[in-house]
Amino acid sequence: MKFLSQTFAIRTERGPQFLDITDEVQQTISAAGLINGFAVIFSKHTTAAIRINEAEPHLIADMEEMLEKIAPACHDYAHNRHAHAFSDNGERPNGHSHCQQLLLGASESVPIENGRLVFGQWQRIFLVELDHGRDREVVVHLIGE
Amino acid sequence: MKFLSQTFAIRTERGPQFLDITDEVQQTISAAGLINGFAVIFSKHTTAAIRINEAEPHLIADMEEMLEKIAPACHDYAHNRHAHAFSDNGERPNGHSHCQQLLLGASESVPIENGRLVFGQWQRIFLVELDHGRDREVVVHLIGE
Amino acid sequence: MKFLSQTFAIRTERGPQFLDITDEVQQTISAAGLINGFAVIFSKHTTAAIRINEAEPHLIADMEEMLEKIAPACHDYAHNRHAHAFSDNGERPNGHSHCQQLLLGASESVPIENGRLVFGQWQRIFLVELDHGRDREVVVHLIGE
Repeated sequence: MKFLSQTFAIRTERGPQFLDITDEVQQTISAAGLINGFAVIFSKHTTAAIRINEAEPHLIADMEEMLEKIAPACHDYAHNRHAHAFSDNGERPNGHSHCQQLLLGASESVPIENGRLVFGQWQRIFLVELDHGRDREVVVHLIGE
Repeated sequence: MKFLSQTFAIRTERGPQFLDITDEVQQTISAAGLINGFAVIFSKHTTAAIRINEAEPHLIADMEEMLEKIAPACHDYAHNRHAHAFSDNGERPNGHSHCQQLLLGASESVPIENGRLVFGQWQRIFLVELDHGRDREVVVHLIGE
Repeated sequence: MKFLSQTFAIRTERGPQFLDITDEVQQTISAAGLINGFAVIFSKHTTAAIRINEAEPHLIADMEEMLEKIAPACHDYAHNRHAHAFSDNGERPNGHSHCQQLLLGASESVPIENGRLVFGQWQRIFLVELDHGRDREVVVHLIGE
């Protein structure tokens, strides 16, 4: 019975951006020697999400377009008017980033069998940057044997 | 190796409402003496969700506005016409509440390190009431050591 | 302390379709003799999601309508133009399916107490087919005692 928690530092370049972290997650599992169990993948941020989908660049452009349509960056967010109005700490208006993140979520849980994530053929796991590029942290928590 | 499952009764006042339950979850972890592991936070309801975001009141108003835009309360839902048409049990038309909950989800999983949720600076966990105010139940399930 | 991972083959008939898999998940728990713990329910697909809501047919029609409104099948997706333009493997244009799945998610985690999912009165768990009908796989991973 093993527990392992590992935090990854990831530098995003822009928002929106889908960063494929599948290899890092799989390497953590392999290095830990975990055979059966599962992984919780968790974003430590309120404007960057964890999601599983296909790593097809045109599709990712479609998904970014949908997120912008649901919560456009240019919308008049109360959060931008009030919380960021006098910000002098480099924060930019990001009401849309929070709203989009609310729809995507902070965690996914994935079973592990025979030392591998049980992913189907097209599944890849992403840190989804919804704000501007910055340093981010993702926690991979493993439990199993 | 410990398992602990605790159910919290929570009274919501209205919908939509974001109720910050971070302190209750953290207290459960501390009381259990759990050092490493993780928590599953689960809503027992189809019109109240579990989500992690920032507890900034203007932002929460923005998120409520987005949810209302995606699935407006006044829309003509088949669920309201059929399932609630002759309701005499106090149920109100809530097609929008179900639709919004579908997008947010019933659970989040959060790693625990050194006895604490591994939350980033702005992360708080919410029970999101999407129907009218009522008694709700949230289950916090801990596993770890 | 038990781990059990079981993969279910499910044939969907059309998209969108909400397939209630609650009984299969509960039977897996009962057959494993698991009393306390929790279940991770995971879709191995990028166009089929796992979600918990109410199994009311009119409501499901409402939820399908909302998903179609957010990401319409007829929209001009780059994924359809590029990745599927010359497909000869039976794939159909499914940009909308991926976009909708991004919003719903691949997994839910549900606590188990006294051998039962801790579901509230109306909760049922669904594999949500967002593409056309086909063979699908859902993994149920149990951990507990």
